[in-house]
Order: sequence, then structure tokens, then C-alpha cells
Amino acid sequence: MIVAMQEGANDAQIQGVIEHLMRLGFSVHRTTGERQTVLAAVGARTDFDTRTLEVLDGVEHVHRISAPYKLAGRAFRPEGTIIQLGNGVRVGGGEVVVMAGPCSVESREQLFTVTELIAKAGAKVLRGGAFKPRSSPYSFQGMGLEGLKLLREAGDKFKVLVISEVMEISQISIMLPYVDIFQVGARNMQNFNLLRELGKVKKPVLLKRGIAATLEELLLSAEYIMAGGNYDVILCERGIRTFETYTRNTLDVSAIPIIKKLSHLPMTSDPSHGTGLRDKVPPMACASVAAGADALLIEVHHNPDKALSDGAQSLYPEQFSKLMEQLRMIAPAVGRKIA
Amino acid sequence: MIVAMQEGANDAQIQGVIEHLMRLGFSVHRTTGERQTVLAAVGARTDFDTRTLEVLDGVEHVHRISAPYKLAGRAFRPEGTIIQLGNGVRVGGGEVVVMAGPCSVESREQLFTVTELIAKAGAKVLRGGAFKPRSSPYSFQGMGLEGLKLLREAGDKFKVLVISEVMEISQISIMLPYVDIFQVGARNMQNFNLLRELGKVKKPVLLKRGIAATLEELLLSAEYIMAGGNYDVILCERGIRTFETYTRNTLDVSAIPIIKKLSHLPMTSDPSHGTGLRDKVPPMACASVAAGADALLIEVHHNPDKALSDGAQSLYPEQFSKLMEQLRMIAPAVGRKIA
Amino acid sequence: MIVAMQEGANDAQIQGVIEHLMRLGFSVHRTTGERQTVLAAVGARTDFDTRTLEVLDGVEHVHRISAPYKLAGRAFRPEGTIIQLGNGVRVGGGEVVVMAGPCSVESREQLFTVTELIAKAGAKVLRGGAFKPRSSPYSFQGMGLEGLKLLREAGDKFKVLVISEVMEISQISIMLPYVDIFQVGARNMQNFNLLRELGKVKKPVLLKRGIAATLEELLLSAEYIMAGGNYDVILCERGIRTFETYTRNTLDVSAIPIIKKLSHLPMTSDPSHGTGLRDKVPPMACASVAAGADALLIEVHHNPDKALSDGAQSLYPEQFSKLMEQLRMIAPAVGRKIA
Amino acid sequence: MIVAMQEGANDAQIQGVIEHLMRLGFSVHRTTGERQTVLAAVGARTDFDTRTLEVLDGVEHVHRISAPYKLAGRAFRPEGTIIQLGNGVRVGGGEVVVMAGPCSVESREQLFTVTELIAKAGAKVLRGGAFKPRSSPYSFQGMGLEGLKLLREAGDKFKVLVISEVMEISQISIMLPYVDIFQVGARNMQNFNLLRELGKVKKPVLLKRGIAATLEELLLSAEYIMAGGNYDVILCERGIRTFETYTRNTLDVSAIPIIKKLSHLPMTSDPSHGTGLRDKVPPMACASVAAGADALLIEVHHNPDKALSDGAQSLYPEQFSKLMEQLRMIAPAVGRKIA
Repeated sequence: MIVAMQEGANDAQIQGVIEHLMRLGFSVHRTTGERQTVLAAVGARTDFDTRTLEVLDGVEHVHRISAPYKLAGRAFRPEGTIIQLGNGVRVGGGEVVVMAGPCSVESREQLFTVTELIAKAGAKVLRGGAFKPRSSPYSFQGMGLEGLKLLREAGDKFKVLVISEVMEISQISIMLPYVDIFQVGARNMQNFNLLRELGKVKKPVLLKRGIAATLEELLLSAEYIMAGGNYDVILCERGIRTFETYTRNTLDVSAIPIIKKLSHLPMTSDPSHGTGLRDKVPPMACASVAAGADALLIEVHHNPDKALSDGAQSLYPEQFSKLMEQLRMIAPAVGRKIA
Repeated sequence: MIVAMQEGANDAQIQGVIEHLMRLGFSVHRTTGERQTVLAAVGARTDFDTRTLEVLDGVEHVHRISAPYKLAGRAFRPEGTIIQLGNGVRVGGGEVVVMAGPCSVESREQLFTVTELIAKAGAKVLRGGAFKPRSSPYSFQGMGLEGLKLLREAGDKFKVLVISEVMEISQISIMLPYVDIFQVGARNMQNFNLLRELGKVKKPVLLKRGIAATLEELLLSAEYIMAGGNYDVILCERGIRTFETYTRNTLDVSAIPIIKKLSHLPMTSDPSHGTGLRDKVPPMACASVAAGADALLIEVHHNPDKALSDGAQSLYPEQFSKLMEQLRMIAPAVGRKIA
Repeated sequence: MIVAMQEGANDAQIQGVIEHLMRLGFSVHRTTGERQTVLAAVGARTDFDTRTLEVLDGVEHVHRISAPYKLAGRAFRPEGTIIQLGNGVRVGGGEVVVMAGPCSVESREQLFTVTELIAKAGAKVLRGGAFKPRSSPYSFQGMGLEGLKLLREAGDKFKVLVISEVMEISQISIMLPYVDIFQVGARNMQNFNLLRELGKVKKPVLLKRGIAATLEELLLSAEYIMAGGNYDVILCERGIRTFETYTRNTLDVSAIPIIKKLSHLPMTSDPSHGTGLRDKVPPMACASVAAGADALLIEVHHNPDKALSDGAQSLYPEQFSKLMEQLRMIAPAVGRKIA
Repeated sequence: MIVAMQEGANDAQIQGVIEHLMRLGFSVHRTTGERQTVLAAVGARTDFDTRTLEVLDGVEHVHRISAPYKLAGRAFRPEGTIIQLGNGVRVGGGEVVVMAGPCSVESREQLFTVTELIAKAGAKVLRGGAFKPRSSPYSFQGMGLEGLKLLREAGDKFKVLVISEVMEISQISIMLPYVDIFQVGARNMQNFNLLRELGKVKKPVLLKRGIAATLEELLLSAEYIMAGGNYDVILCERGIRTFETYTRNTLDVSAIPIIKKLSHLPMTSDPSHGTGLRDKVPPMACASVAAGADALLIEVHHNPDKALSDGAQSLYPEQFSKLMEQLRMIAPAVGRKIA
């Protein structure tokens, strides 16, 4: 940690800060320049709240040096993490994995129709919501357990894995028999109680970035899960909130190469939620793969105009097939392939 | 709802949208101008996802007219809501209520010292965390039930009410005997399962705005609680995330007069979390009252440098007393008073 | 324009707004629903300030229907604009044009070395700053006229066109003999006096999006230039300011497909300024082409560690050649090619 | 400057960075901790681009220690700057100065009516635009020189000073005889050529914060003016762009106490542009004074519904008088007064 003293700071103030740091268990190195004194504090906890120093007399700024996460950092596994799912599917390796399906499970007919479609087009994982977070209390809230059973059945029939969103601790045990990957939505990225429980589960967790979360905060949330013993965390960019209102969110494509540098965990992209508009999904899916994404989440519906949720961002089947063709052309440019 | 067609939209496209709207149960009024056609759709659900129209052929923009909330809107109670707490304390009336206390309950000695201080200075409600949401899994996570008991005891002894944060459904019944107000933190503003459960409780809920939540979303979250039957919701601005990094968050003071216009619910301000820095708390507390806040949440600690969390944003006792004096001078300028 | 009245608005208020609108030259259509009355106002100026209605008694919201720009809108030239530069280079057609070069012109040797490099690798346009906008008054401010002459000479020798930034009206006539494209930087996107003067020039203008500009504002700024008679405007995304601080800016890749829908003007991307970090430039350049960009601006330097400005975001020559190879693989996936 | 090396950085990389820093003229202090090495570099230019180090092998982060501005920093004049205007008016002292008037000068009658009003209510400075920056090329662009003459005449008649916006270098000499303060608008905060020219002028400059400018950037822009010899710079918060769209901008009230700490320059607030809506102006004006503002800019119009620009954010005369009464009650709470 670096503590920059104000230009006019006097010796008593500097000495006060040094003693404060030493009481906290840091060893301190002092550097006095022409304009100001700088203290380098080494050795203590990574979760230290730097603001407790910022308010001391004579202090100008405090900079944290060590990243506040450890298990999620690239240094923990420099070679990168490849997560083994069932069916031989691997996330984080040479193949870009496509996860696709409807926003919500609505009926057996709907789900089976869509699953067949996406499996044929090359998707390896079926996505679909059984429990739905909706901003309005008056909107469709999902099929619950019934939806989970349908997901499992459809996945087994069409030989694709299943991912679905968990919103609350009590849902974990309900979902466990039915899903291959737990998805944590953007609104729950900092639901720390939920993350901690998922750290005890023996299945991979796909953790979405909150719409106002920095990448450091995303990695800290991954750390919560990993600290519990579950190292199979997949990260996902799904759009951040900016001043631009044309799209629901702004898909931060640059998060993909940044996370690949900061962390060893696989990094994926959800252009459906990241744009919220069907005709923007294919270009942003292409952009994500070109930027190095390890996997994509894409909403597909055989009849989006009748979808109970998020129909506006679901691709038509033929759009999805065409997109898969484009992705197959792009992947080799970044040393990857798509099934 | 207003559907603006593109300038070049042809009759078949316009007719298609009209029929689509009618199938959805809207009655449609068509206006054809020099440059484009505009459709006004009246009568259906307030939670309609306007994007399902935006992706139809020939559509340029869709604007929702009705606010998507009902119970939380000003029209529901034009005269405004005054929430009756115990001890004759009322939030939303002529008196600005000050809620103060430490970030976390750390010990009996700490809590009782601080409670005595704030009660003497004029605070009516004691705030203190028993369950703590921390971004790092390695940080202090709160005293739990033991902290709740101490809060109740301190509140009773010094005749102040008690507010504390609930993070998870299972904590509601644990907290119920000990608190007068449930606080929902910014990270849980869209934890809809939690909000729904709080709708069944018979105690007031103070709901904090998420750091990336629009004011409309804040009111929709209030609607979740109210839809369950609990109309005693107090709203709270506590800083939004912007590009400026000098402060942890940017306290959006203008949210106070805006909410007072859009909703009948009391609107409060938390300058401690809203700035994250002690020396910015008094000016922003003054600004909040000057802008019309119904209550303030202020962190106070008798020894902030030793606080287990958020010491940097906690006021020293003498700062708090001085601030109370300033607030007493400002309140009359906006037709209010402070005890 | 749509004026939504408040739920409780009375007849006098509604009549007042209708008369106000008619005095302004609008024709008004009234729709009365179950909950509220909505007025559609048709026929007046596109630059109308809707807030003048929002403050009238009984008004809830006002929505503008028509886009406030005309010449820049897609409807003006539905087939899209292809801008003819010299040497047979066209922006907006089937070929993705790469513009590359150093941030600043520093010396003849530097400029000629880099120009030869980028021309060999397939760039069609040389970019280089002669006048530099620097946030600090103590930084290198550019070579001025001398730099312009070098740019022209290098461009002619290596058969590439020249683009350079104009910061002020008085520079237009100085630059005119030396550049093929005028570039307007992000900080000047709303320097309306400058834009108006560029509307009188007979050379293309590349207009960069401001870091906090909405896409509508970008198109309005293009409208300023076009309103003066110069229709050869090329738009450019170069990063917006968000809460994420890892990169200097967040390159909004989705702006590319959005602008292609809203406008007929070519849309380009500058991943060098959009990320500010060399190792993020290639993935974001790939992403931009995959998302449909008509051209790219890339900073390249033969010795970035010694560059007088922006060395950190300049590619090494071999990185640029490798990137060109990647782009040649990606372009066909979106129906384009690269020379 | 602090250079934090990556955890796995080897000795050759560390040595490479040290030598790089020494070549640049820094003296370097090395601190090796348990997890990583940190280099403190002291002594070189304040405008150094830290990213040139960030891209070196083995470097994790680089933190600037010294603020990149000098003349604008609090250390330059710890006691604070009081700017002497004519008529004995001082900005930055014990009195909060109110600057008020119409958005644009529209006619002699309009201007004189408003000026009389605001002078009677206690305003000390008349604000009014003669040259107007408008986002649409089709909007009213101001009265120009004629407007300046009217401003001077009205100011002299009613004994108030005159402030007006300068948009371009060529306007400086035109305005010089007519204004007491030059105003630089938010869109021109980084028009460095304009700032440099204003550094040569012998009149105070009120510099508004850009809607996406950090406070550090605002101070760097002030530095541009001061570096030219004009130390009479007044800073102004007028709203930043955030994700919230209810108001045109979000007035960052906390910028007031922050700037008062970082800089010695007076800090003011413009709640009219900061909110864009008339009924939000009084609460935010009160909040600004409560937070420590040295002056306010308020738009007032005797007939806002007919104003040629920004009528929606202009106060009615009686609102302005009432606001002045409120401000007179609030100012003493923060140790200030209002005439």
C-alpha cells in the first residue's frame, strides 16, 4: 500500500501515519521527494480499507498495490483454468462454447422445440430460466421446479448440458439434481450469502457481472465462491449501465481481454442481455468471439413475439443458425474453433 | 404507450403493428403527421415490455406513458405518507428525523457509548449493522444475533428506536423481535425474493437505492414490498456510481426533490455511504436537509480509527453534535424542524 | 411529440396544454385512456425543447417522436453513404479501410519509418497529429505546420492518404492543402463554431464521438457539418467514459451497429484511444470489424517507448502486421474484405 | 510515482523498469515485499503519462502520486483565493454571491425587466448569453455583439456586474469591453486553445466543469488558464452525465466540498443547468449553499414560457425572490451570509 502525504505535511503528521501503519502490522518504507513524502507499507491484509488512512492528518491519497483477491487472480494459475463440464465439453480451452435457449422455460413444447434447434445448430449448453428476477412484481415469475425438470429432460434428450439461474439460497438444493451449471445473475453478483453457499457446491457457477460492478468487484465476488472451495467459476460480461440509453445496457467487450489478463478464470459474454435488442445480438456475439470470449450465452426462441419474457432480445431460429456460421468463420482468427 | 413508426414505414407495417397491439388488448389511436405515423395504445398492463414492439417491422421508438408502478406513485396518496414509528417519532412529517450510530455493532461498550452520544445530540433512531455485506470474503462479517440483542438493549436504555440491515430471507424472523425498522441495503435493492417477504412483515422498511438504480427502478422495488401489503416504505438515497472516483459514490442530492414529486413515500439520505469520507459527510448532510430530505442516516463512532468497518466515513462525536446544530439552523429554511 | 398528462390532471390543465401547443404551431390529437390523457402534437420544428412543456401544470412526461436530426438520419439516404477519397479508396463500401500511424508527428525519420510500415501492411490512410490537444499545459503540443508538410510528403511517397486533427477554426485553412480528411477530436465534438466552418469545406470530415456524448448527440453534431453543405462526414467511436477505470475509456462497440441503423453515414472505430492500452488494441480492433465497422484508426509507432505522446497505446510494427492478418480473416464473416 | 510490479515479475524485468525510470530522470526507491516489488519514482515532470510504464514487462499498476496540476492546487495558496470583482463584490470570501439572469439576451425590454428584478432581490452579477452553444444547428444562436452591449447597459443601470459565455478565441476581444467575467461553458472545458488565450486576459474567468470531466481534469483546465498568468479563475459545478435520465444532468453537489479541499480557487454551482427543470432549481440551490458554494448561477426570466432558450429551467421572478430568502436563512449555518 502506498500512502502519499500532502505537500505541506509536517514531520509530526508523517510520523503519526508511520506509527499508525506499524500498529496495523505493516512494515513501512519512507521516500522523501522534492515535493512530498511517500510511504510504502508492505505485508498486511489484502482486504484493508484504505480510506481509514485517507482521513488521517496530512495524507493526500492512498493507493492499494496488491489486488484484493488472491484465488481469482491470474498469478494463482498462470496457465489458465479449463472447466470440465459433462459430455466432454470444456470451457476455457480451444473451443468457444455456445450456450443458447429461451429466456424462460414456458412449456414442454416450447422448450423441446428450441432445444432441438439450438443443439442442431451447434450449441453445447441449454440455457433457460425457471426462477426469474423481474423488476415488476406484476410480471411472469417463472415455472419453478416444473421448469427445472423440463430443462433436464430436454437437455438429456438432445444431448446438451443445462444452465439455469439461482436467485436464492433455498433454491440451490432444489436445482442441484437438474442443472449442470448454476448461473448467478447480475443483480445477485454481490449477494454474498448466496455466493458463499455456492462455494460449497460441487458444480460450476457462471457468475455474471453486475451492471455497475467494476472488474475488480467481479473478481472479488468470484473470490467469495472460490474461498468456499468451489474453484469452477466462469465469469460473464452482460452489459454495464452507462449514460447511453439507446440500448438497455452497454456490452463492455473490452472486459473480455481485461479479465483474461487479470484472472485465470474463463470469461464469457451474453450479448442478448448486453444489448437487449435482437438485431444487435449477432454483431455483438461476433465482436465477443473476436475479442477472445471463451463462451457465449444467446437467447433463442422459436416464436419470440409470443415469449413470456425478453422476446425482444431473442433470436429467431434462422438468425441463430446464421450467427453460428459467422462465428465459425471468426473463431480461427483468434486461434479458436466452434463445434 | 406510444409507438412512433419510422418515416418510411408503409401501410402494411403500420397495420401489422396496430393488429399486434389489439391482440394484446390495447385500444389504438392513429395519428398521421407530415413525416411519420404515431400510434397511441391505451388500456393494457403497466408492466408491458416495450421492447417487444420496438423490434417489429417499421417501428422507430416506443415510449411507455404510464409509470410502471402504482402503489408507490404520488397519485396513490397525493397528500404524502407519514410513517409512524414508536416513541411518537414520525418520518415524512414536519420534523427531520436523524438516524445515527456505528457502521457495525462491535461490542456492548462501543454500542452503548455511541448510543448515549447520539441520543443526547438529538438522534431519534439508532442505526447499527449486525449482519454485514462485505465485498471481500476475508472481512469482518458482523456479530449476528448477539449484535441484534445489543441494539435492542441500547435502544431501550437510551430511548431511541432501532434500525438494522436485513440481507437474507432467513434473517427476517431472527431480526423481527429486535428492530423497529428493517433496512434493505443498496446491493439488495433488486433482491426481489427478499422484498416480497418484507411485504408480509408488519414493520417499516427503509429501502436504499442501488448504486446503479434509476429512480423508476427504486420505486418499482418499493412496489414489490407494497404489493405484499406493507405500505410503510421509506426510501433512501446513498450515492450512485459515476465516472468520478474521488468519492466512493456520488450522492445524488437531486433524487430527494425528484422522489418527493414522483412518490408519496418519505425520502431520506445517507451521506456517510454516499461520500465514504468523513469530512464530506457534514456538508452533504446539510445539503440533503436543504434539498428536502425527511430523514438522515449518519455513521458515528466514538473511536473511528479503531472501527471494524467503515471507520473512514464515521463522524467523531463532536463532529456529530456540531452537525446537529447546523441542521437545526437549516431546517427552518425549508419549513422543517429538528429535535 | 407526445405529451402525457398526469393521472389527476383536470380539464382546465389539459385544455391549457392543448392551447399552448396550438399557439406553437402544432396540431394536436387527444387520446383519453382509463388512467390518463395523452396528447399527440404533430407538425412543428424538430429542435423543439420538450422541457418547456414538461413544466406546464398537469404534465407528466413529454416524449419527442421525430429524431432531432434530418440530414444525418438513415431515412435521408436509405442506401447508405460511400465516401470517395483519393487513390480509389472508399469508406462505407465493401472494403474495411485501415487508417494507421503515430499519435503525433515527431520527426521526418519517425514519420517516414512508420508510414512505410503501415503502407506495406495494408493501411490506406496515414494518421498523425500536427496540432495536439493535451490535458496538461506542460505537455508536448505538436509540430504544427511543419508536421502537416511531413504528413503530406510521407503520404505522397508511400501512396497513402492523410488524416489529421483540426482543433480550431484558424487551423482549417492552414491544413487544407495538406490533408485528405479533417479529423475532429472527441473534445471538440460539440465545438459548434468549428463544426459550422467545416461544413463549408470541400473535404471529408471524420467526427469522433465525445466521451460523454449520446449517439443522438453525435448525429446532431454531424448535422451541423452537413447543414453547411458538406455531406462527407465519417463517424467514429473512440470510447466513452464509464465507472470502470481499468481502461481509460470503454470502447462502445455496440455503437457501430446502432449508428449503421440510425444513420447512412459510415461508422468507424478507434480502439487505440478507446482502450488506451496497447495489448487491448488488437482484440478490440477485431471486435470492431466483427461488429461491422467501416474503417479503423490504429496508432502504430516503430519505437513506442520513446513516443512523445500516447506511446502506451501504440502498436509495435509486428503487432500491427499480425493484426492486419487477423482482420483479413474476420472481415469475410461479415461480408467485407480488407486490402 | 509508484510502480507496482506483478507478483511473478523476475529480476530482469524489475531492473528493466528501474533503468527505464532513471533514463527518464526519476530517482528510484525499491521496496520488496512478501508478494511483490514496488518502485517509488521521485523527481520528474508532473505531466508524465503513467501508461508508458504500465505497458512495460512485469508491471502491474502505476499510480501517480503528485497531482498533475500545481498552480490550481490548494498547496499553492493554502489560505484560499478571494477574487475581487468591481463594485466591491468578492467571490470566495464570507459572502455567497448570486449571479442571475436570463439564459439568452433576447431584447432590451426582456433584459432590463429581468435585471431590475434580480438586482432588487439581491443578485450581484447579471448573467446572460450573447453567443449560444446549441446542440441543434437549427436553434436560436444568440444576439451576439448587440446582446453584449445590452448586457453592459443593463449592468451599469442596475449596478450589477456582467458575466457572459465566450465560445471561441475570436470572441474574446469582442467581449472584453462589455463583460466583467468571462464564462467558459461545459462543452469548452477542454478547448485548450481557448483556455490558453484566456490566460492572457486581465479579467476573471468562470470555468464550468464538463459533463464528463473528473475534478482532476477541471483543475487541469484551470491550470491552462493560470499557466498563462491569469490567476482569477472561478470554478463551477453544473451537472455531470450519469445513467439517471430523469434530470438532464446530475448536479454533483459533493464536488463543492471536494474542490474546496483540493484547490484554493472559489467553487460555485449552477443548479439551473445542473437540473434542467425549474422546480428542482430552488432545492438544489439551497443544497449548494449548504454544502459550501461560494456563488450561485441562477437562470431567471420574467416570462419563461416565452423564453427563446432554456425557459424550462428559468425561475419565475417570485420564485427567485423566495429562493433568496431561503438562502439568507441557510448561509449562516455554514458561516456565510448573502446580501
